[in-house]
Amino acid sequence: MPALDVCFSPELLTLYDLRGKVAVVVDILRATSSMVTALAAGITHIIPVAELAECRAFAPQGYLTAAERDGVQAEGVDLGNSPFGYLDGKVSVKGRALAITTTNGTRAIHLSLSADSVVLGGFLNLEAVANFLRQQQKDVLVVCAGWKGQFNLEDTLYGGALAERLAADFDTASSDATLAALHLWQYAKDDLAGYLLQSAHVRRLNSLEVNKDMEFCLQLDEYNLVPIWQDGRIVAL
Amino acid sequence: MPALDVCFSPELLTLYDLRGKVAVVVDILRATSSMVTALAAGITHIIPVAELAECRAFAPQGYLTAAERDGVQAEGVDLGNSPFGYLDGKVSVKGRALAITTTNGTRAIHLSLSADSVVLGGFLNLEAVANFLRQQQKDVLVVCAGWKGQFNLEDTLYGGALAERLAADFDTASSDATLAALHLWQYAKDDLAGYLLQSAHVRRLNSLEVNKDMEFCLQLDEYNLVPIWQDGRIVAL
Repeated sequence: MPALDVCFSPELLTLYDLRGKVAVVVDILRATSSMVTALAAGITHIIPVAELAECRAFAPQGYLTAAERDGVQAEGVDLGNSPFGYLDGKVSVKGRALAITTTNGTRAIHLSLSADSVVLGGFLNLEAVANFLRQQQKDVLVVCAGWKGQFNLEDTLYGGALAERLAADFDTASSDATLAALHLWQYAKDDLAGYLLQSAHVRRLNSLEVNKDMEFCLQLDEYNLVPIWQDGRIVAL
Repeated sequence: MPALDVCFSPELLTLYDLRGKVAVVVDILRATSSMVTALAAGITHIIPVAELAECRAFAPQGYLTAAERDGVQAEGVDLGNSPFGYLDGKVSVKGRALAITTTNGTRAIHLSLSADSVVLGGFLNLEAVANFLRQQQKDVLVVCAGWKGQFNLEDTLYGGALAERLAADFDTASSDATLAALHLWQYAKDDLAGYLLQSAHVRRLNSLEVNKDMEFCLQLDEYNLVPIWQDGRIVAL
């Protein structure tokens, strides 16, 4: 039976060998939730980049550009990091390509590329990713984007939710990190939003917009798609 | 109000500035539990060293030597990593000095030395350390020794137990790691041994001896002493 492990921070990725595994990168607030939403809204593919200037340089090629630094939209780009940017109709997104840079999510993706496959997870596409992993039958590492290298609750809870979904098909008991994620998920799941409102990271981002985003990002199984890394781009599987 | 934070792995210590803080290094199974026990049993001071050869070199100076690698006693030393080594009377410990090396605990101590004070925590001296921290009135970082850099449950639970004790005197809500530790502690505390028996790390060490050690190490407030780093040695405060 393949195993599911959870890495709480990109800073800990050096401890893991990703070869032969599937990496599920998660940045619930809000990078991977927004990327799932973007693809669901008709974005053709996404290029995650590290630097803001690199992101802006995609605009002349017809790309939409999205960038967030320290939780707010950066200057000179079309969109921030809110999933509603792809839904509210202010910017036309269907059929467009997207270049995106975010504080933590992009870094987590780039550090995971030695895995056999890299997919993006969120509560929004929880079952879609679970199904993909059941088909792959490979060891899985959930890579939590964290907050500037530190542990955060929302990405960890996603790891626990995924472990719960996969408990029959994967070994979810051989890693203390997976057990902790699972138990925190069980502790929090009946009132996920209420639980996360006490989170230091959520309070750090605290604003009306982010709270609205958070409620959106915590919806389970809203989209049946798996964003996957292919040849330098993220596409919907 | 000073803050209490929890660092889940020595590998994450680069993210924290320890200056002006008290570091509480914890390696429940079993380095810091054994060091607390050693000092309680009459060891005068402890020198934690990184390498086995370095540890053995203290023997000609009259030191007791203790060493563990991958959970078992190393060759050519007096003691392993079991707290019972200081209690069972097979080796005379009262009034002796001790040189010790362990896989994770020693490393965590050495990486924490930029803190104002470094003390050693365990369930065995939980309230003694809590009292010391209340007196210091400085920010606290609980440094979990982990397992070869990875997160483990027992050190995390200690962070949660300490946060619970200090909730009235310290800010324990501004770090997601502290919140997670606290919630896992609340989840596990009614049957700590039962909870940890499912832990991957505990199962990895699994043996009759380690289970006996574990039960011992999970006792709360058995010793009223605080091991503290002073001039290259650990002494009882």
